[in-house]
Amino acid sequence: MGIVVVGTVAFDTVETPFGRGENVLGGSATYFSTSASFFTDVSLVAVVGEDFPAEHISFLQSRDINTDGLQRIPGKTFHWSGKYGYDLNEAQTLDTQLNVLMEFRPNLPESYRDADYLFLANIDPDLQMEVLDQVRRPKLVACDTMNFWISSKPEALKKVLQKVDIVVINEGEARQFTNQSNLVKAAREIIALGCKRLVVKRGEYGVLMFTADSVFAAPAYPLEEVFDPTGAGDTFAGGFMGYLANTGDLSEEGIRQAIVFGSVMASFNVEDFSLDRMKRLEYREIEARYRSFKALTSFRDINDLKS
Amino acid sequence: MGIVVVGTVAFDTVETPFGRGENVLGGSATYFSTSASFFTDVSLVAVVGEDFPAEHISFLQSRDINTDGLQRIPGKTFHWSGKYGYDLNEAQTLDTQLNVLMEFRPNLPESYRDADYLFLANIDPDLQMEVLDQVRRPKLVACDTMNFWISSKPEALKKVLQKVDIVVINEGEARQFTNQSNLVKAAREIIALGCKRLVVKRGEYGVLMFTADSVFAAPAYPLEEVFDPTGAGDTFAGGFMGYLANTGDLSEEGIRQAIVFGSVMASFNVEDFSLDRMKRLEYREIEARYRSFKALTSFRDINDLKS
Repeated sequence: MGIVVVGTVAFDTVETPFGRGENVLGGSATYFSTSASFFTDVSLVAVVGEDFPAEHISFLQSRDINTDGLQRIPGKTFHWSGKYGYDLNEAQTLDTQLNVLMEFRPNLPESYRDADYLFLANIDPDLQMEVLDQVRRPKLVACDTMNFWISSKPEALKKVLQKVDIVVINEGEARQFTNQSNLVKAAREIIALGCKRLVVKRGEYGVLMFTADSVFAAPAYPLEEVFDPTGAGDTFAGGFMGYLANTGDLSEEGIRQAIVFGSVMASFNVEDFSLDRMKRLEYREIEARYRSFKALTSFRDINDLKS
Repeated sequence: MGIVVVGTVAFDTVETPFGRGENVLGGSATYFSTSASFFTDVSLVAVVGEDFPAEHISFLQSRDINTDGLQRIPGKTFHWSGKYGYDLNEAQTLDTQLNVLMEFRPNLPESYRDADYLFLANIDPDLQMEVLDQVRRPKLVACDTMNFWISSKPEALKKVLQKVDIVVINEGEARQFTNQSNLVKAAREIIALGCKRLVVKRGEYGVLMFTADSVFAAPAYPLEEVFDPTGAGDTFAGGFMGYLANTGDLSEEGIRQAIVFGSVMASFNVEDFSLDRMKRLEYREIEARYRSFKALTSFRDINDLKS
């Protein structure tokens, strides 16, 4: 089977210079699974409250996302409020209401436990570890995290990082976690913890991927209209993992292609609020933008100077 | 003949978290011409004071840089003092002593006036225009500028931008000049002024090059040790223009290659203080790093998904 993702399903209230969305669908697992669903089967592990509307579940199911692992428990759904200025790279969190997330204990349906690909989206590292322990023999495990867990649970987080193949985090988080201003040094330190690859997300500056002996740089797609960057990182990760799960090609070349597919998906997601762009996205658009990435980055091999 | 560059030759006092250089050789024309000299003939137009030591002139001449246009006048050489924090992207200017620069009137030696390539480095836009008027039929003219001229002489600067083929500026300056937070929109506005190409320098995030109908993204080379970013932009421009002047290939493909050579040169320059890395740089290192840029950015063409 395809990918299992654990993370959040949320209501977001988001303000950008270009508009405002109130109580819109959000959450790391939502963005990830919607993006990955363009490439492969996805099964979701998350929790919502009694206030979560059936239409959102219908949307996930319309993307063939398996929601057997989506728990609904008494209480209210996790709610995040944030604001972006004209510099759309960083959100200012205005309010976080954990609600049902405080009681979340992931319990994977039996059908999920043979997943080949596992993504531990941003969530308490103790919960990430619980999920990791429930999946039998995954081919590939990747995880994300955030500044909050780096400062509040660094030891639990380190244990997770040691058990995954690929770590996907923001540039600022890589620096914060290692206390290293130089990103190449920060990357070496994170890889030294035990993961094989580090993918560093840099917002509008794209992505750098590190292994012990290689680096790959992919730009973000230069867009004239960026409406809402919320979920861009999870949408990136969904395209990245979704493409890997589709092809099963875990060579350096295959993984680089997956990075570009992830970047393609993120570039669409920021074009509208919430998951609105994903809802009307078609696969031929994804292919066309992959080709645009190729055109954006191509240059000739070296030739001899004239003397 | 090759390139003529007008700009500053200066003493810099620079402090970074990794060291300090006092009264070291600097200036936009110095960095530019040294970098370009690895690819083509360069002729310098600038001014220095009586305190400028012969050893610096000897260095420029050792790189085969034509210094006939380097005026020496009574007074002290231009002196810039700046400081960088761990975020090496932006310098904090501590002191600027214009000195002889205040009386500089560029007067090109007759032999310079048939230059095919002209670079107007960061200097008063009125002086840039004076130089432009003295060169008869250049094949390609490019210019740089800085925030100071954008706010103090926007109209003079606009006139220069209308007369050049390629504008090379920092990301923040592109936004400041157009009052546009979105870089793609800012680029369109600058190109609409009349230049054909805009090259946006983004420090450790590399370069974006815009034309009316194309974009090219080149990353910066990920370095484990960055000692001093001073002069990186001018070193970039020198490699870029130097390569163009060497090949004469002004096709999109040729210009993209030049962008990568510029990025290669900048990546070396930041590895040491002042021009110290340039002084010991060899051409085979430049070629090797060009190949590393290729490896850093390469990914496969799209292939069909498995269904």
